[in-house]
Amino acid sequence: MGADAAAALIGDGMTVAVSGFTPAGCPKAVPLALAAQVRSGQRKLRLTLLSGASTGEELDNAWAELGMIARRAPYMTSKALRAAVNGGAEEEIAYTDLHLGEFAQNARCGFYGKIDFALVEAAAITEEGNIVPTTALGCSQSWIDLADRVIVELNLRQPAALEGFHDVYRPADPPRREPIPLTGVGERIGTPYLSCPAEKIAAVVVSECEEKPRPFPPADAVSEAIARNIVRFLLREKEQGRLSADRVPLQSGVGAVANAVLLGLKDSPLEHLSFYSEVMQDGILDLIDAGKADFASATSLSLSKEGLARLFADIERYRGRLVLRDSEISNSAEVIRRLGVIAMNTAVEADIYGNVNSSQMNGSTVYNGIGGSGDYARNALISIFMTPSAAKGGRISCIVPMVTHVDHTEHDVDVLVTEQGWADLRGLSPKERARLIIERCAHPDYREALRAYFEAACAATHGAQTPHILSESFRFHENLAQSGTMREEKKGDAKC
Amino acid sequence: MGADAAAALIGDGMTVAVSGFTPAGCPKAVPLALAAQVRSGQRKLRLTLLSGASTGEELDNAWAELGMIARRAPYMTSKALRAAVNGGAEEEIAYTDLHLGEFAQNARCGFYGKIDFALVEAAAITEEGNIVPTTALGCSQSWIDLADRVIVELNLRQPAALEGFHDVYRPADPPRREPIPLTGVGERIGTPYLSCPAEKIAAVVVSECEEKPRPFPPADAVSEAIARNIVRFLLREKEQGRLSADRVPLQSGVGAVANAVLLGLKDSPLEHLSFYSEVMQDGILDLIDAGKADFASATSLSLSKEGLARLFADIERYRGRLVLRDSEISNSAEVIRRLGVIAMNTAVEADIYGNVNSSQMNGSTVYNGIGGSGDYARNALISIFMTPSAAKGGRISCIVPMVTHVDHTEHDVDVLVTEQGWADLRGLSPKERARLIIERCAHPDYREALRAYFEAACAATHGAQTPHILSESFRFHENLAQSGTMREEKKGDAKC
Repeated sequence: MGADAAAALIGDGMTVAVSGFTPAGCPKAVPLALAAQVRSGQRKLRLTLLSGASTGEELDNAWAELGMIARRAPYMTSKALRAAVNGGAEEEIAYTDLHLGEFAQNARCGFYGKIDFALVEAAAITEEGNIVPTTALGCSQSWIDLADRVIVELNLRQPAALEGFHDVYRPADPPRREPIPLTGVGERIGTPYLSCPAEKIAAVVVSECEEKPRPFPPADAVSEAIARNIVRFLLREKEQGRLSADRVPLQSGVGAVANAVLLGLKDSPLEHLSFYSEVMQDGILDLIDAGKADFASATSLSLSKEGLARLFADIERYRGRLVLRDSEISNSAEVIRRLGVIAMNTAVEADIYGNVNSSQMNGSTVYNGIGGSGDYARNALISIFMTPSAAKGGRISCIVPMVTHVDHTEHDVDVLVTEQGWADLRGLSPKERARLIIERCAHPDYREALRAYFEAACAATHGAQTPHILSESFRFHENLAQSGTMREEKKGDAKC
Repeated sequence: MGADAAAALIGDGMTVAVSGFTPAGCPKAVPLALAAQVRSGQRKLRLTLLSGASTGEELDNAWAELGMIARRAPYMTSKALRAAVNGGAEEEIAYTDLHLGEFAQNARCGFYGKIDFALVEAAAITEEGNIVPTTALGCSQSWIDLADRVIVELNLRQPAALEGFHDVYRPADPPRREPIPLTGVGERIGTPYLSCPAEKIAAVVVSECEEKPRPFPPADAVSEAIARNIVRFLLREKEQGRLSADRVPLQSGVGAVANAVLLGLKDSPLEHLSFYSEVMQDGILDLIDAGKADFASATSLSLSKEGLARLFADIERYRGRLVLRDSEISNSAEVIRRLGVIAMNTAVEADIYGNVNSSQMNGSTVYNGIGGSGDYARNALISIFMTPSAAKGGRISCIVPMVTHVDHTEHDVDVLVTEQGWADLRGLSPKERARLIIERCAHPDYREALRAYFEAACAATHGAQTPHILSESFRFHENLAQSGTMREEKKGDAKC
């Protein structure tokens, strides 16, 4: 069927669930055709859009710009969607931000209602009618199983040689679930394809849409310094006889800092690295090529344009070294805890007691969402959070007295790393953590103000467990709103 | 060995790890003897105390009163300890509040240093030298495995018939962990006793210390109304065809409200209940006696004095209906998610967006700690939090614009219940949640003020994802500090 005819099957008010995770693996032709129908004024649609994580520009951005999305879960990264979620568009989007590892089961247990259409990108369809996915899985199999009807986009630009890179596993749901039998990053527990009863297939659309990865984030001196600190921490764990990155897998978030960490690992003395992660970035290919990494497991190959070209040009080189899993397996609490993953995620801001905000500005405006960070941080052997100590040319301190939104509580943050240094928070009381975070992680320009807050809070609460002065706890943020910087304006008194 | 001689083995600066969970199963004679040595001025000690959760008065309270505790993890409930943790004692205690389900593995992985002594209460010692625990397990087996030396308190007041009520399981640690093979609340995967190499035993002390349970919290009209709302919610889940309490196990927290819920379940039409929990309270015995509950699994039998007498008088009646597990199994993310537990935990306060504070007053003063609430809330099939809508005779609203401390983020709270009603937050955006929580859960006296805050925040942020006005977000708490009530004082303008 043509993309236009397939798109016409999707009606107003429907729930559409799509394959993929990040732009990787997402359907493109049908979403673009549907957007064109709306843009031309032919149709008006308000849809619920479910996915594995974020999607490509063809989907979230195009649909949000046209006001086609009424509800969205479980994650997003798109300018137009972000605006509409935060009230900056005519038609508001009700966005539910969720732990990605829990999303598929919740949907199967009926928490989000009926799914009308699953849209799934395929690299090939086998003779038996099975679907070979493209560069990501996300919740594809669950969407197929739950949806009334399925539209498959067979993308001729995706190499059929991707067959064999996937491991699709269908867990039973409570109360009949069995242990997920995965005990090592390289094991296979499922099938290399998605399966779908023929009678559910509403359309197979042949597409030649090119994958449009997000631009590769450049590393900078600050990211490199953070990466050096992480490598130092990992080496110290090894020296002290504890489990470290040569014996347990790493999880690595997405973005410039995460990529810098991968580069830092390449140049480190650590050997036999492995990854159990949600997203593989280009750095993973570098580590495999350099003989540093033995294996990587994720739900998405979210590579740059160059990275994708490199993978596709030499795909046999990576076969047996990479596996793509359902996001409920890549992000499974059970498996992450079992493998002893060392998790490395980024914070928007952290507070002096170790609470982390990874999603909201000023407690109000969501940037992307939590994604899988909570799945990893909670269940990891060691949970590392990293952030530059300051942002916006020093006008923002990323270490604050109190975060304005908590995504990861003090109980889920073992180590905090900035370019200034790292604070190992394990086994410390909140007041001990505060002293360490201020001295080791905060930017020098803000240390005095943080010390002053901490000491004043200790005095005001007579040394309570987690001293705070509620009327002062967001002063950094209020300064920023008033004067464009978190720094205190110089006043008559000596206080910084 | 006498308790006094055994206590003398424990030296200054040592780390002592104890059996049990709540007062149940904790050692008593040696801790009291050690306290007596300090009280008499014979000795001065500063110790690190690790446990399963809280302990009996003989331990936390007696030791804290004497300034014997330098460091404490992972939980506490004791007046003297609470005072010292919050700066209200001469000698401060560094308290680390942790997810109870993660504590044993973290200790085995070396995060908290060397353990000098394990103190373990026993109901019996078998001919083979195995240790039959008493009314709780906690981390007992890990403490025995990690400690240099072990002191066993053989408590003659504990019935030897407790043999067979325990299921002790030793998971391997990453990277060699296998799936925890538990797939049903009643299954057994371990041994009925703790094991310890004979050469590690430093002393066996015969004790006749009586168990001193905490007084049974009385139910009141508000608790009963909360319980009714929870039962209604569970029945609605069943009516709507989703998994409910007749097909998946329940977890129930500790305290008056939790007990009222158990009583409410007894009078409900739900049948074949089962429990996968950390603590069993008296209500579990009632449910078993009434033929309503088939089985209960926990790490602690934290019964009242009457409940314990009832259990011990008729112990064969409960054999095969109750099992006590290591807290890392009762609170295991893997098992909780697999079984599809419906979690019911209490909140100190919740905010209009669904974030929950379960541990700290005014963001500063810890009351008890998070305990296992996070283990269950994060991994549950459905995570319910409950709280009265108001406290202290209405002077405190338990629904606030922004919680002053986050233990459970908006992502971990599916349903919020007060005596006013319940709000099903699944699949809703934060703004949708706010409207529902204010109208369904907040106390009527505070609804107008909450609506006013929410509307002002929506206006100020132009409808951001989670609207907040940082300078106003803690106004309820500031009112309380200034005027003894969270209520707004009547001002000239019409605003409530």
